[in-house]
Amino acid sequence: MSSQFGHLFRISTWGESHGGGVGVVVDGCPPRLPLCEADIQVDLDRRRPGQSEIVTPRNEADQCRILSGVFEGQTLGTPIAVNVFNADARPEAYREMEHAFRPSHADYTYQAKYGVRNWQGGGRSSARETIGRVAAAAIGKKVLAAICPGLEVVAYVKSIQHLQAEVDPNTVQFSSVEANMVRCPDAAMALRMIDHIKAVRSEGDSVGGVVECVVRGVPPGLGEPVFDRLEADLAKGMLSLPATKGFEIGSGFAGTVLRGSEHNDAFVMESGRVRTVTNRSGGVQGGISNGEAIVFRVAFKPTATIFQTQQTVSPEGENVELKARGRHDACVLPRAVPMVEAMAVLVLTDHALRQRAQNG
Amino acid sequence: MSSQFGHLFRISTWGESHGGGVGVVVDGCPPRLPLCEADIQVDLDRRRPGQSEIVTPRNEADQCRILSGVFEGQTLGTPIAVNVFNADARPEAYREMEHAFRPSHADYTYQAKYGVRNWQGGGRSSARETIGRVAAAAIGKKVLAAICPGLEVVAYVKSIQHLQAEVDPNTVQFSSVEANMVRCPDAAMALRMIDHIKAVRSEGDSVGGVVECVVRGVPPGLGEPVFDRLEADLAKGMLSLPATKGFEIGSGFAGTVLRGSEHNDAFVMESGRVRTVTNRSGGVQGGISNGEAIVFRVAFKPTATIFQTQQTVSPEGENVELKARGRHDACVLPRAVPMVEAMAVLVLTDHALRQRAQNG
Amino acid sequence: MSSQFGHLFRISTWGESHGGGVGVVVDGCPPRLPLCEADIQVDLDRRRPGQSEIVTPRNEADQCRILSGVFEGQTLGTPIAVNVFNADARPEAYREMEHAFRPSHADYTYQAKYGVRNWQGGGRSSARETIGRVAAAAIGKKVLAAICPGLEVVAYVKSIQHLQAEVDPNTVQFSSVEANMVRCPDAAMALRMIDHIKAVRSEGDSVGGVVECVVRGVPPGLGEPVFDRLEADLAKGMLSLPATKGFEIGSGFAGTVLRGSEHNDAFVMESGRVRTVTNRSGGVQGGISNGEAIVFRVAFKPTATIFQTQQTVSPEGENVELKARGRHDACVLPRAVPMVEAMAVLVLTDHALRQRAQNG
Amino acid sequence: MSSQFGHLFRISTWGESHGGGVGVVVDGCPPRLPLCEADIQVDLDRRRPGQSEIVTPRNEADQCRILSGVFEGQTLGTPIAVNVFNADARPEAYREMEHAFRPSHADYTYQAKYGVRNWQGGGRSSARETIGRVAAAAIGKKVLAAICPGLEVVAYVKSIQHLQAEVDPNTVQFSSVEANMVRCPDAAMALRMIDHIKAVRSEGDSVGGVVECVVRGVPPGLGEPVFDRLEADLAKGMLSLPATKGFEIGSGFAGTVLRGSEHNDAFVMESGRVRTVTNRSGGVQGGISNGEAIVFRVAFKPTATIFQTQQTVSPEGENVELKARGRHDACVLPRAVPMVEAMAVLVLTDHALRQRAQNG
Repeated sequence: MSSQFGHLFRISTWGESHGGGVGVVVDGCPPRLPLCEADIQVDLDRRRPGQSEIVTPRNEADQCRILSGVFEGQTLGTPIAVNVFNADARPEAYREMEHAFRPSHADYTYQAKYGVRNWQGGGRSSARETIGRVAAAAIGKKVLAAICPGLEVVAYVKSIQHLQAEVDPNTVQFSSVEANMVRCPDAAMALRMIDHIKAVRSEGDSVGGVVECVVRGVPPGLGEPVFDRLEADLAKGMLSLPATKGFEIGSGFAGTVLRGSEHNDAFVMESGRVRTVTNRSGGVQGGISNGEAIVFRVAFKPTATIFQTQQTVSPEGENVELKARGRHDACVLPRAVPMVEAMAVLVLTDHALRQRAQNG
Repeated sequence: MSSQFGHLFRISTWGESHGGGVGVVVDGCPPRLPLCEADIQVDLDRRRPGQSEIVTPRNEADQCRILSGVFEGQTLGTPIAVNVFNADARPEAYREMEHAFRPSHADYTYQAKYGVRNWQGGGRSSARETIGRVAAAAIGKKVLAAICPGLEVVAYVKSIQHLQAEVDPNTVQFSSVEANMVRCPDAAMALRMIDHIKAVRSEGDSVGGVVECVVRGVPPGLGEPVFDRLEADLAKGMLSLPATKGFEIGSGFAGTVLRGSEHNDAFVMESGRVRTVTNRSGGVQGGISNGEAIVFRVAFKPTATIFQTQQTVSPEGENVELKARGRHDACVLPRAVPMVEAMAVLVLTDHALRQRAQNG
Repeated sequence: MSSQFGHLFRISTWGESHGGGVGVVVDGCPPRLPLCEADIQVDLDRRRPGQSEIVTPRNEADQCRILSGVFEGQTLGTPIAVNVFNADARPEAYREMEHAFRPSHADYTYQAKYGVRNWQGGGRSSARETIGRVAAAAIGKKVLAAICPGLEVVAYVKSIQHLQAEVDPNTVQFSSVEANMVRCPDAAMALRMIDHIKAVRSEGDSVGGVVECVVRGVPPGLGEPVFDRLEADLAKGMLSLPATKGFEIGSGFAGTVLRGSEHNDAFVMESGRVRTVTNRSGGVQGGISNGEAIVFRVAFKPTATIFQTQQTVSPEGENVELKARGRHDACVLPRAVPMVEAMAVLVLTDHALRQRAQNG
Repeated sequence: MSSQFGHLFRISTWGESHGGGVGVVVDGCPPRLPLCEADIQVDLDRRRPGQSEIVTPRNEADQCRILSGVFEGQTLGTPIAVNVFNADARPEAYREMEHAFRPSHADYTYQAKYGVRNWQGGGRSSARETIGRVAAAAIGKKVLAAICPGLEVVAYVKSIQHLQAEVDPNTVQFSSVEANMVRCPDAAMALRMIDHIKAVRSEGDSVGGVVECVVRGVPPGLGEPVFDRLEADLAKGMLSLPATKGFEIGSGFAGTVLRGSEHNDAFVMESGRVRTVTNRSGGVQGGISNGEAIVFRVAFKPTATIFQTQQTVSPEGENVELKARGRHDACVLPRAVPMVEAMAVLVLTDHALRQRAQNG
């Protein structure tokens, strides 16, 4: 179903930007894992608006509440419901969206599909929906810690518009990512990125970029042949995030200009383990993890909402002009980092359970 | 499940390269659609080996047989089973694969996952598996013709290694694609691509490239918010194809270097319809089709099997050398075109039925 | 997944008897249906404890709150989250359940499965979980009203222990069911049933019975061949309710003593419609509705919790005695009526949407 | 989907009575299980027509062929396709069904749903469809043998019309069931049943009855709370079989006339295991197995096809008479026994894998 993700660790998110709240129900979580609200809050805080001067100023604490599935600090094996109530909703700031479809936004397509839409703050198409994913992934991390110990997911900003960071996916640390507000572990480039975002915002414009993500410590064997290949599920997870336009794994599009003799990853025994000399495969072969680091990149377009006058049409079919108000990110990348990480965790958690089901 | 795709138009593929055969069961197909084996065969012929001098010489007619779900030339609404028996299997040509994992192939990961593998011809990881998808998509085309009349899917080779074609997705015709053996509608570039593939093959090497696909005549409203966005399902479908490393829609990765003011697609009324002036969105906004052409690209790596000596390891954990024999494509792109088209058709068929279910 | 039901109208329930609350997320609901909290509350009130002197005295208003998916009184097509917070929880009344498995309850099996359980009030196995189903079905009724106008579901108590009511499923009205607190439309028998429940309760004992349900005005064609037959999905829905031990449709078990010549329902044309002279099929043939009334019965065992000393074991593996306290129904049947009705509505809603998807 | 069953051990059946054949694809089977065609054939032979003088004389060897998923005698973990081609099809014997809906059959409902039907031999509604289920269950038995050693499923005829057998589910053996052609382990009653079926058949009439099934050696913990309760999935599986009208587990409908104090199963420690003194729960509590024998019963109506003149209507809406020809069972019960067993195996296999996924 449209708002569900995962086969065995299945999440159902709900909520609109300006309704009663947002949340998630997680079904299929193994029992007896330690879990409390603080475990979830730490990731929600990395995603929340108002966290720094380069993101949207909407002021939401995004305080989560676990309503079920946990007893005396442990998961019960039953559905875990997590709610976040909306606090700083200002529907009046969106009044003009009622009468004009924002270009490159979901206003028109929702109206075309459903014949109705919640025009306040983007409704269900708002990035606010990703709260449920990030909360669910915080739970997924507990599952992975239990059944894939040593696995770690690190996502970071690889580029903002033309500004490209130098990062080694084999060694990058979570602490370096969180060390600055743009979440780019290349500290020097991070400063330039922050300045650039501020400059763009002051012009009422927006920028996009690329988030790169590495998963290290993955046991060989996760993922399945044919449709539920690990990279296919990762691609779906990433392209399901708002504002994404592309996904590539390992050598990606650049790999298409190499020859097979240049591209192949030779196998070699190393300390009794099968390793590859290079990692153009990006840690996945035939849809299944090979034990090397999984490395992929996700393209985010520049934020659609800009503070410049744009040409558009009204629900009544008239050509009109729109100049947005409201509170928006001039660049979604800093807040997209925990979202990418969350989708990676959700995919891996599901496949770790599937692997255990079929292969013991 | 791993070998199933689609929610309402659900296909289940089965079969290994060198087992009894390959096939598909299609569940959920609407009734009373005209269908015969020839409808399917025409697409299987575009996918089959041995079709031209630049693809693998394995000689398979890939003759399909419909075993159920059709009565007196019409679909019954019940599962449609389509079988293709393997004919020109030569397992002996793969004997060395029993004792060495082919680099950048699925040999090692299947062994790591399952503790067993059919080493003959790649087993389930062979591109032969895509026969079931192409057959199912031939049926999907009948569904689309009935409920989305005017919708057309055209895929083509956009690049082979560094050779990049000029193609206008708004006007490219199926006949131009099928006019040459490399399936590139830029006729001059097609000749260069063909020469290049022959040259590479003669060196025992391989090349990859990019397939572009356009879907025109899509009604607004297909696709769903959040996880089952149209681009998310397309990304999953494409990354589930063998040898794929990347997916991008509309502006894709190149769009990340534009500003919002450059990237946004202004809306304008045109003949009473809502249109966009540009199409950087690639026909999808907020996960839902907006009525413009859907345009996406898929990266295919160079074929892993090359006829050069490579370093690898054996199932017993020894470093060994491997020089492949067998019959392989030096470039999968010409045969990948109908596969990309098939996955696009399957995604659209499923979403067309989902749209009808929820929105009438 | 365990806590999800439905393929297109999919509900996800969550919550324990004594946790933060209970609720449901409904995904796949068509847009533009009128919906407010009062529409849901009316059915929750029929299910709630404390509604009459023959049900559990736990005092819960079960006030629902719609948190998403509705805007300006209309469904949006996006997930609808409904929450009910627990109010009158008294976990201390269950303290002895921490140390003794209640006979014929789920205490032991939850512990055996998960290695942990919320022993307060039965946790997830409590009938309180059905709040989410009843709320979802209130929404399902809106869908059915829109796409199967004229369809009506009426459930009622058919028997309490040996007391058997006389009811004509072809004519029974909802108002007669709701006319008394035991929800038996045979008014005379209802009085006897009420007296009987009171007498049994005063002895600290409990009784079960049978709920019958009729669905009239079903269009021919709902349900699907093979696994998702209408009666199969109804059977699953009913056996998923707490305390159920059996399901039968049409002639049911009694039909097994008839001969084919006695059992078959002859077809006859009536006012231009295909009808059957008798209805031993119970409105379903080959898994698909035939337009006659769907009639089925569900067996509910006597409530497991009784106020008598019982032999049991502790989680530590010792034989112990248990005498329950807490607040319980001596007979679940009156409150089971809206639950049976809810599951019937959920099955029919899902199949109505599936029918529209495949057959237009 | 309609022709799929199971969440992790998922089967997809296909085929009509008089099409090219019938079969199944099994997805999710664990690897490295021994499997050959003979393992499947032994169960197909118990289901096949023509096996004795009291079943339909249609002469089908039902020879199966495994086309994929098995290599050198072991499962690969990939989809297993099993085909059975139709041999003794005599469509001309069904010519009158083209022009008249058989009473209490699926002819009318298929026509109403799909607007088309394969009128030869019942098409997809034929019991011939169950070949795929029985074949899949033969594979499921291998899975259960590996991960639930000691688990055994025994189904048998409990009654034919009024003739009721005495059978102790705790001790009944498979060999006693297979000792006679009616598959009733009460040898004396079996003789009377056989005579009765012959007598009824000679009158051109038919009879139904009850199949009882016991599953012994089930580990505690299989099944899941709420919707996917073990009894709910068993109920769905059984009601998905042709000609079924009811399901009950443990005390079933008879349990509704007991009081709680009479019905509850007291717990007691026995050799260090938690056991129940009685088993009115039928081995399942709160949807989860408690380690006691699972015992349930399934009601089969008398075969709809009888060789007597019946009143019916034509597809053109005229009242007509029909006298069937063709080859039919006067009583489906003997052949239903392996079908009930198959569905029980499929449910348990799926839940055993689900249990391993979530609870290790």
